[in-house]
Amino acid sequence: MKRYDPDYIGYLEQFVTEKRKATLKEVLARRTRHLTVVLEDLYQMHNISAVVRSCDIFGIQDVHIIRKHYDTKISHGIAKGAEKWTTFFEYNHTEDAIDQLRKKGYRIIATTPHGASVGLPEFDITRKAAFFFGVEKDGLSELVMNRADEFLKIPMFGFTESFNISVAAALILYETRMKLQNSGLDWHLSDDEQRELYQLWLEKTIKSIDSVKRKYYSGG
Amino acid sequence: MKRYDPDYIGYLEQFVTEKRKATLKEVLARRTRHLTVVLEDLYQMHNISAVVRSCDIFGIQDVHIIRKHYDTKISHGIAKGAEKWTTFFEYNHTEDAIDQLRKKGYRIIATTPHGASVGLPEFDITRKAAFFFGVEKDGLSELVMNRADEFLKIPMFGFTESFNISVAAALILYETRMKLQNSGLDWHLSDDEQRELYQLWLEKTIKSIDSVKRKYYSGG
Repeated sequence: MKRYDPDYIGYLEQFVTEKRKATLKEVLARRTRHLTVVLEDLYQMHNISAVVRSCDIFGIQDVHIIRKHYDTKISHGIAKGAEKWTTFFEYNHTEDAIDQLRKKGYRIIATTPHGASVGLPEFDITRKAAFFFGVEKDGLSELVMNRADEFLKIPMFGFTESFNISVAAALILYETRMKLQNSGLDWHLSDDEQRELYQLWLEKTIKSIDSVKRKYYSGG
Repeated sequence: MKRYDPDYIGYLEQFVTEKRKATLKEVLARRTRHLTVVLEDLYQMHNISAVVRSCDIFGIQDVHIIRKHYDTKISHGIAKGAEKWTTFFEYNHTEDAIDQLRKKGYRIIATTPHGASVGLPEFDITRKAAFFFGVEKDGLSELVMNRADEFLKIPMFGFTESFNISVAAALILYETRMKLQNSGLDWHLSDDEQRELYQLWLEKTIKSIDSVKRKYYSGG
């Protein structure tokens, strides 16, 4: 079943400027699910917010959030609006996130300065990759460290031995995204995925969406 | 006049473990002044701190700080200790910073998402480059924008139109540092520069440096 409705999209488009429609389509054409980000038990909202912002900037559509130890809804009101355009997946157990991502064809990539085997410049983006980022202080859980397919490390040349999590995420997304850009890989969203998001983004763009929607479904 | 003393260095080395000496020398061998960072009127300490940390991580020795509108000494107590190993230059006027950096052979690079001409992946690192970062809200001053040799832009693919300053700095330093690493350029500090810093770093490493120093100069 398609999760969008071409008629409804056509209807919504009336309420949006040409310029805005063009922007939505341009951004969509640069979105990817070839790379994704998984945040394991991050507590600091400003870090989550910064990572989601980098995802938007580098065209990463999905962000996966594992929250074992607290239950606030974190997919709202973060990232200065960048979260508005992001697709969130939430989990209560790391295991669920790993299993579901594997089913979708992702390699599980532990980002860590410790025991790392692959340096960021050498990282191979041929297959789909889910980058796991861990708690500010303690890093990733043992579960992720045990079940990861690869360990990814950012080169460091100084005394400092770790990155702020938002900086680490930005560096990894920048480098892998630029590689993707220059690869012959088909990293774009499918047409169906793009249309589904386009419908959603049109809805989010229209201020009076509630009444606009009501009118459409009441046959007005 | 040399700003280090081989005898004094030999004396100081007695108080430092082999492992620590090796670390100091390894980090020194990776330090560069080919690239440098200039912070124009940054107010938020956590941003300055994060940038200095990235400089350490990517082996950038010098950080230039222009502070026109406040006079707290910002070169101390920031960056979780990373500032301990950084050389700071401070200015009260942007003009002075530009003039002095030009004299040292640096190109003035305005980092800005606006009116940018060079994308980060295309940026040429052949000649020495000083990356100017501006105030969180307003960006760089007109003076920098008018006098810059080049404008540097980080590619963006989403709705978000600007980076957090610490993320922008990290991305630029990572990319240019990796290019330097893979270039045939002589980007290392000179032997004299390395020895001068080595002496300074030995002093900073020794906890009881005051009494150790006193002993040396009293001929003990």
